[in-house]
This record gives sequence, structure tokens and C-alpha cells, in this order.
Amino acid sequence: MSKPIVLFSGGLDSTVLLWSLRPNVKAISFDYNQRHYKELDTAQRICNQYDIEHVVVDLAMSEPGYVSLAELFHQAQSSQTNRDVQVPEGHYAEESMKATVVPNRNMIMISIAVGWAVSSGSKDVYAAMHAGDHTIYPDCRSEFVVPLQQAIQKGNAWNICYFWAPFLEKTKAEIVKLGASIHAPLDQTWSCYKGGILHCGVCGTCVERKEAFQLAGVVDPTEYEK
Amino acid sequence: MSKPIVLFSGGLDSTVLLWSLRPNVKAISFDYNQRHYKELDTAQRICNQYDIEHVVVDLAMSEPGYVSLAELFHQAQSSQTNRDVQVPEGHYAEESMKATVVPNRNMIMISIAVGWAVSSGSKDVYAAMHAGDHTIYPDCRSEFVVPLQQAIQKGNAWNICYFWAPFLEKTKAEIVKLGASIHAPLDQTWSCYKGGILHCGVCGTCVERKEAFQLAGVVDPTEYEK
Repeated sequence: MSKPIVLFSGGLDSTVLLWSLRPNVKAISFDYNQRHYKELDTAQRICNQYDIEHVVVDLAMSEPGYVSLAELFHQAQSSQTNRDVQVPEGHYAEESMKATVVPNRNMIMISIAVGWAVSSGSKDVYAAMHAGDHTIYPDCRSEFVVPLQQAIQKGNAWNICYFWAPFLEKTKAEIVKLGASIHAPLDQTWSCYKGGILHCGVCGTCVERKEAFQLAGVVDPTEYEK
Repeated sequence: MSKPIVLFSGGLDSTVLLWSLRPNVKAISFDYNQRHYKELDTAQRICNQYDIEHVVVDLAMSEPGYVSLAELFHQAQSSQTNRDVQVPEGHYAEESMKATVVPNRNMIMISIAVGWAVSSGSKDVYAAMHAGDHTIYPDCRSEFVVPLQQAIQKGNAWNICYFWAPFLEKTKAEIVKLGASIHAPLDQTWSCYKGGILHCGVCGTCVERKEAFQLAGVVDPTEYEK
């Protein structure tokens, strides 16, 4: 019963994390009406194909008179949840990439995953934030992760649960290397923030993805538009 | 724009907290298919009547193939979210009251409130956990609250947000006293976990409510079944 839970976006990092824990693992994803909606299809496809227990939590629906989390997020000027805001192009670590920040997203997703863990008898929740995320996303840094780990343990004292971020100090290139060595299906993962038919090749995550394969010395199986 | 946000259940504690911050305040509540559903009606009624901006976040709906947070919670053996589990009667601080714990609920609600705060230009989120909650609910203790405050600040470094729990070391009797002194509508609040027509008078929160008015020396305006 006590399978660890991985926050799974269908992206490169969380796929490698999922693979490193397989087969004793289950996965959780979130629909918050994100622009790169395609990640959910990717996550479902990978879990179906490899027979991994998977739930997608719906945070985008609401009854009349109520609001969904997606609607709350929509007010934020994030390109990820507000389609009126353009997805920035360029290098992942540039200032302009701050337009892709979704307010408090990691804490929300992690806290729901912990709720599922405690409800279903799991003791561990994993997420794949990594060193390359640190510049743009403050909720991918150890100064966020360490107190959060503490709060999760203390807040669930009757059914203790641990939160782990094993890639916290790894580069994306190191994750690609690890993924290749454990035969994670890197070719099936989805990174692009634009969510078109192919990876666009120019948004921040596409640029980062290309660079990671190059630095890792692993052949990039991705077909890019540009 | 920068109104603080209160986690508002329509109960006694969060109503007093809301009143202590009025009129410069907005409120957030959550539908997670809780048994004491009546608290949402109460919260909406109070906010409507006193013209307080209020959102109810729907965590109980999902598209086919997806799950809602309420469904994830349902697996937990909590009387609050699983109607097959009986609401325990007796004193609030008894061991049996652990049946009312909803896994990681506070962290989930607080993290969503922080997401709304950052999205909408608020800088402060408040919740009304108090000293009487400490025995049964580990996510109402300072050992949970303090690291969570830290994580919230660090995780939202671009739009800093603070989380406050000003009643953390107050007893419920002290909250009743404060509420009476600031003319909070204590008579309109709803505590009972059973969610009937009247307060049942015998579940943990009803017992605690009665006791708080007595200890505070404030006339209890509540009509109890027993």
C-alpha cells in the first residue's frame, strides 16, 4: 500500500524521477487549465503504457457561484494560465521567464499530493524541481523546500509523510544523463510551454531541453519546429 | 488592492478573525464535499450581509477521467469527508476526535489562499487556528505554522506573501471574548460537525463551543438540540 507518489507533469524531469522509483510508485498530475495542456495527455499516455497508477486532480471545474483554482490563477499575469499573456522566448534563465511563474503552484500541488498520500496510506511524496529552476522559480529552491518538508512532517503527525526533492541540486543535463542510463522514455516526454503539435524549440523550456541533451552528450530524440 | 485574505469557514474563530480585520479584508472558503456543508452557506450569508468580498473554491467537481480533491480525501477515514464514518461525540480534546482530521487540509487551503493572494495583489493570508486545536490537529500547531510561514515567504519571493495565525496561542474562550468586544456576529456562526438544522450540542465542536462561551462569561446565543 505504501507506494511513494510522484508529482508527474509528463515533462523530462518528473519522468526521470518516476522511472528512478518504478515499479513501486504512483503518479499525480493536475489540471489547472494550463496552457501547455498537452502535458496532461503526455502524463496519461506514459502512465497507461507502463501500467503506473495515476490520478489527475481537476482544479479547473466549479459549480455556478463557486470558483475553480484555475479561475483564481487566471488573475495572475502568468503566461501559463492566462492565454492573453504571451509565452516568452529565449533562454530559460532570463528575467522575461518570470512571466511563466504560477503563484504558489508547487506548494498547492505538493500539499494536495500529501493529502492523497495520507488518505491512501503512502508515506512519501516526490517532486522533480532541479537546480536549473532556481533562477526563475523561487518555489524550486532549497530555502522553500526545506521548511516545507518540516511543515509537512509536523502537520501530519498522526500519519507521518515525507516530502523529497532528490533533484534539487542536479542540473537538467545530469537528469538527462540519469534518465538515459535508466532507460526512461525521454522521447515521449513533453516540455514545451506553448503546447503545439511539436516542441516549438524557442520557448524557455524548449531552449533548456535542447541545451540539457547537448550538455549531457545524449542524442536528443525531440522533433522541434525551429 | 492589497486586502488581506482570511480563510473563512463561517465558524466562530474565523468569523472573529474576519471581524478583527474588517472592512479591509476578503474571505476564501472551500467546498471539499465536507459533511458540515452548512458552514459554506453560513460563510456566504455572513459575507453577503456585511458586503465582504468572498470566493468559494470548488474542490469537489471533476471531469470524467479526472478526480476531485474531495474524492482523494474520501479514501481517508475522516468523519468530515466520508459519510460512512460516524461523527464522534464527547469532548473536543479526546482521542476519538482524531476521526475528524482531514489529511493536510490546512496546508492545502492555505496554499490555495496564498495563490489567490499573489494572483490578486494581496500580501497577507490569515487563518484562525487556535490553542484548543492543538491536541487533535497537528496542522494547527506552531511547529507546523512556523516552517509553513517560512516556505510561503521564500516560495513567493517575486510577490512576497505572509501567512499569519494570530489566534495560535489563544483559547477559544479568549476568541469568544474578543468576538463579543468587537461585535462579531457570533450568533450567526456555525460550528457543528453534524450539519443539521440546529447545532447538535454533543459533537466535539459543539461541546467546545458551549464551553468557550461559559468560560468567556459571554451569553451563548446558540440554540442546541441537546
